[in-house]
Amino acid sequence: MTANLFDAAPGGRPEAEEITALAEGAGARIERIVSHGQASPPGFWYDQDRPEWVALLQGEAAVEFADGATVRLRPGDHLTIAAHARHRVAWTSSAPPAVWLAVHYLG
Amino acid sequence: MTANLFDAAPGGRPEAEEITALAEGAGARIERIVSHGQASPPGFWYDQDRPEWVALLQGEAAVEFADGATVRLRPGDHLTIAAHARHRVAWTSSAPPAVWLAVHYLG
Repeated sequence: MTANLFDAAPGGRPEAEEITALAEGAGARIERIVSHGQASPPGFWYDQDRPEWVALLQGEAAVEFADGATVRLRPGDHLTIAAHARHRVAWTSSAPPAVWLAVHYLG
Repeated sequence: MTANLFDAAPGGRPEAEEITALAEGAGARIERIVSHGQASPPGFWYDQDRPEWVALLQGEAAVEFADGATVRLRPGDHLTIAAHARHRVAWTSSAPPAVWLAVHYLG
């Protein structure tokens, strides 16, 4: 009935970022993301139709915005990324892996 | 730009459960809840129109369902509570306080 956010992903491979859907409905999609040092490709920007609330639960990470801001995250830090705010994952820790919680929701 | 899930609530009082809205849109409401040993009143059941995804981030807690199941939660444990699944908070730890993340979303 329950699962744990820090459990290993089934079939997870540390060579790749692991995305697991935890819950989904018409209004929101909740994901757990485990990054093992992965970052977005240089010059790549996410540009999303829906706002995203994101929290870092383990490890360290940094999110870079196209407007020039970089936000460094430690466990427990959270922020809301507005729809169409172009951003990328600048870096993530690998030991321990970065564990993120992301909620994409209808704004 | 960021806040931390483990920060003290502004004006928080340990006599009461503290609920902080972290993000909200048409499709979802994301809340941080800090419980200091509080439980739902005996015989009280939540009966919600929307599904709720809930994770325990700190402390310990137990959620009881009207169908008889009780789910004990430790840090990182998460579950989805279906719309209209009657439930109550059976107990929460006070040292440390129980820190919950709850997402009420359009199913």
